[in-house]
Amino acid sequence: MCNQKGFTLWFTGLSGSGKTVVAKLIEQELHSRNLKVERLDGDIVRQSLTRDLGFSKEDRDKNIERVTFVAKLLTRNGVAVLCSFISPYRERRAKSRREIGEFIEVFVECPVEECARRDVKGLYAKAFAGEIENFTGVSDPYEEPENPEIVCHTVQETPEESMVKVIAYLEERGYIPAA
Amino acid sequence: MCNQKGFTLWFTGLSGSGKTVVAKLIEQELHSRNLKVERLDGDIVRQSLTRDLGFSKEDRDKNIERVTFVAKLLTRNGVAVLCSFISPYRERRAKSRREIGEFIEVFVECPVEECARRDVKGLYAKAFAGEIENFTGVSDPYEEPENPEIVCHTVQETPEESMVKVIAYLEERGYIPAA
Repeated sequence: MCNQKGFTLWFTGLSGSGKTVVAKLIEQELHSRNLKVERLDGDIVRQSLTRDLGFSKEDRDKNIERVTFVAKLLTRNGVAVLCSFISPYRERRAKSRREIGEFIEVFVECPVEECARRDVKGLYAKAFAGEIENFTGVSDPYEEPENPEIVCHTVQETPEESMVKVIAYLEERGYIPAA
Repeated sequence: MCNQKGFTLWFTGLSGSGKTVVAKLIEQELHSRNLKVERLDGDIVRQSLTRDLGFSKEDRDKNIERVTFVAKLLTRNGVAVLCSFISPYRERRAKSRREIGEFIEVFVECPVEECARRDVKGLYAKAFAGEIENFTGVSDPYEEPENPEIVCHTVQETPEESMVKVIAYLEERGYIPAA
């Protein structure tokens, strides 16, 4: 705890894939181990950091740019940072990786059909009805990670199983002490 | 070093008053004591966090809102944060204080005539010539702090003297261990 190593877990995936569910379980687990943790997602940063941004490619990139700045500062000060953002563009994620340094990409993989079936926030129905523009996976691209450090298949795995997988990765690589 | 207490030193004052000069000296001193430090100022955050913002009251407030979010997260994770921003509006500074919690307001006091005489960046000349709008102290208000924790009078004090004063305050209040 004294010399905690900073890192950023970057959860990328479609809306409804389960990014935030998995990130919240990991947050709890790290907290229970008395580690410093900050979780960032759209709902959190939209209150202050990115209130002005929409969903065009330019605005999505700006969103990630600002979040990356925050994650970089926290990471280099020894905090475990959990970022869950759709972050659909490969090149923008690569930039975040370069800036943050200790960057662990977690691809939260779930077919768009399953995300649409879950439709937790009712957004897919609206997107298919054409009521929302620039909706990732429907009317906007999602560029899958080519070499993510971790993949969570949220159709086959429970959120707890995904969490255990990520925690094991962090322990094995020395990011956190073994429990 | 192990259980460093987080806090934010918030330097407010006119352009050219000496905020950043003093903040940089404090940054060096804290670094030399192996403490975690992050310094934020306009030049640093404009690269990513606030690239889109100008100098209207609304944009200035947004600027401070975003910086405050970052300072809050760093502060609660045990980092010494040094923010130097003109931050001319009292109510916006009060909001930052409430959000950040461990907030130490440092009023970097210098008469506008002296700031204009120094005119480090050549901005006052342009402001007086009407080439820059919304210039704090010339064509835009600066609301002085009513109860700052520390005042640095940069006409009478050297930057080193101001630094020593701030460090003494941090030691006395237990924010940092005595040297």
